[in-house]
Amino acid sequence: MEIYLDNSATTKCFDEVAQAVAQMMTEDYGNPSSLHMKGVKAEQYLKQATEVIAKTLKVNEKEIFYTSGGTESDNMAIIGTAMANCRGGKHIVTTPMEHPAVGQCMKYLEKEGFEITYLQPDASGCIRLEDLENSIRPDTILVSIMAVNNEIGTIQPIEQAGDIIKRKNANTLFHVDAVQGYGKMEIYPRRWKIDLLSVSGHKIHGPKGVGFLYVNEKVKIKPIILGGGQQRGMRSGTENVPGVVGLAKAAEMVYANMECDINKMYCLRDYFIGQVSKMDGVSVNGAQGRKAAPHVASVSVEGVRAEVLLHALEDKNIYISAGSACSSHKPVPSATLQAIGLPKELLGSTVRFSFSVFTTKEEVDSALNALRELIPMLRKFQRR
Amino acid sequence: MEIYLDNSATTKCFDEVAQAVAQMMTEDYGNPSSLHMKGVKAEQYLKQATEVIAKTLKVNEKEIFYTSGGTESDNMAIIGTAMANCRGGKHIVTTPMEHPAVGQCMKYLEKEGFEITYLQPDASGCIRLEDLENSIRPDTILVSIMAVNNEIGTIQPIEQAGDIIKRKNANTLFHVDAVQGYGKMEIYPRRWKIDLLSVSGHKIHGPKGVGFLYVNEKVKIKPIILGGGQQRGMRSGTENVPGVVGLAKAAEMVYANMECDINKMYCLRDYFIGQVSKMDGVSVNGAQGRKAAPHVASVSVEGVRAEVLLHALEDKNIYISAGSACSSHKPVPSATLQAIGLPKELLGSTVRFSFSVFTTKEEVDSALNALRELIPMLRKFQRR
Repeated sequence: MEIYLDNSATTKCFDEVAQAVAQMMTEDYGNPSSLHMKGVKAEQYLKQATEVIAKTLKVNEKEIFYTSGGTESDNMAIIGTAMANCRGGKHIVTTPMEHPAVGQCMKYLEKEGFEITYLQPDASGCIRLEDLENSIRPDTILVSIMAVNNEIGTIQPIEQAGDIIKRKNANTLFHVDAVQGYGKMEIYPRRWKIDLLSVSGHKIHGPKGVGFLYVNEKVKIKPIILGGGQQRGMRSGTENVPGVVGLAKAAEMVYANMECDINKMYCLRDYFIGQVSKMDGVSVNGAQGRKAAPHVASVSVEGVRAEVLLHALEDKNIYISAGSACSSHKPVPSATLQAIGLPKELLGSTVRFSFSVFTTKEEVDSALNALRELIPMLRKFQRR
Repeated sequence: MEIYLDNSATTKCFDEVAQAVAQMMTEDYGNPSSLHMKGVKAEQYLKQATEVIAKTLKVNEKEIFYTSGGTESDNMAIIGTAMANCRGGKHIVTTPMEHPAVGQCMKYLEKEGFEITYLQPDASGCIRLEDLENSIRPDTILVSIMAVNNEIGTIQPIEQAGDIIKRKNANTLFHVDAVQGYGKMEIYPRRWKIDLLSVSGHKIHGPKGVGFLYVNEKVKIKPIILGGGQQRGMRSGTENVPGVVGLAKAAEMVYANMECDINKMYCLRDYFIGQVSKMDGVSVNGAQGRKAAPHVASVSVEGVRAEVLLHALEDKNIYISAGSACSSHKPVPSATLQAIGLPKELLGSTVRFSFSVFTTKEEVDSALNALRELIPMLRKFQRR
């Protein structure tokens, strides 16, 4: 039996999602730009999907733009904002713990003459709000802060951040990468003064290759993919109707039972962390309790290399991640773990367990038993 | 019964494609960047898909990069080339008949200080090779010409163009938008000296939201979507494994029987054009015979507005397109039809029929009968 505890990397699609996608591919396969019924029907599917998604965030339907996933959403938000607003200033505020989809855009903009301020987090991975307040200047056009860190699960104080940003500079836009947050916590873009919000389908049991960007209707950004003018010119290319329908189905299913599922995942996480913390030379990183997302647990194991532990667990059909699986295979030290001041010797000894609504207590117990068995063995092995 | 003759807008997925996609979504759903078996398996699926696709073009596997579709492929090719090579020059050559995914990139680059030369076509929609030869300069960094026009089906002399481009300037890169050509004609990027080739999944009975860009291994372009460094840094974002597997399945199926299917479609097209040309005040645009793609027929109907004919056919469950359905609903006059010198009064009276391997002679006959019945009636109606 497979125990999949790598849900921050990607999730199993809901069966209902796969069915909806397959139906759209072979039956309702029209191009939404076609003027005949087959196109109109495809457009209606898009519209219905957008209604569902907009409702989950309590925003307007015209504020939702579909992309090829979280990475494109982040690129569109950050580069699109920078291109549209660079006359207002060239200063951007972010954190060193962002996903590379944000981090690499910042590096690109730095080369293009933008100045980037990085807010250093505390030991739990949480930004300090006074630092944020001090960082906002008259020429700050954008602040980008993730809702939930993908490696340690820490939730950032997005609501307070939104207040501070707008109080200091009403023109500063606020982007939130919610790829790990959407569906794992309530998010209210309007109330929290979020202007742009990135979401990915495959992190919420939806399809890969699709995501969306919420853009507040008053916000102007420039499109980064040009062409036929679909999605009101903001994102050209024939809409991925099956993907969008699948994404909406997943969002609908996640939100239908969200509070209950979140509580269930918190119980599992608290139980797991409680047990794992008792193990010798094992520590848990990031914020705890409700200050972290319900699905991510970052665990450092003294004297055991992350890859070794990962593959030992894999032999028992338990799948976890060494750091973040969202990037390519390059073994670079985690920026997040460095930013929270993890001792150097633990940087290569940190693994991530990530849960989903499908995760059971039995699976968590199996993982715990495996850790109890493997860690002492692997330590002996590595000392040799 | 539905008669779908809008296959240049989008196609029905092969059942095998939908099945493969659904399986990848619920069973082999790993993230290719994950180090455990579930990730490794996903990576293997990607690799197998790439082998299939590379084989169809007789190119190396490492020359295939996956995108969210034809539009992104075109953007990546053109903007990526311009960004990487602008020190070598800022002159680009293209045609006024390109898809907006190419055309809008050219307009963007024009604003960024690039100079664009547009090659005017002859009355059949074919570029003149002597014009191409005369257009190439020492500072020409890119030529972008589509393989098959999406509105009139004319095939461009890509092979000869490749020869001329490289003879005049070995440093000039050659991009071919093959969104309407791939699977409808043999294409040999190496032999034809094509450096970059764009392909879309949903035009060949594959999934929407996925496509690829062939990039010759010697060619340097800059990525347009930044992040986790997937696909060797050329296109970040978790790979759309189900989409890629579906795309490869579609490519495999199309290529398995391609010669035969192309001949079948040419027979249908020739028959359709022969019959439709006999109708009073009806003319066919673009190149004929093997100088056009097998699946596209552009028909101008004097005295009948395209949308009116489209909706009258729709009432009979026959689905066609008014001009190109690849762009949004904006009723702009077709650049292609203008470029081939179509009389002004026919610009709004031109429709497109586009076939696929699923199209039967009976369906074409039904469409012809409908036209015979509707055209005189609609003319009377519009004269009133």
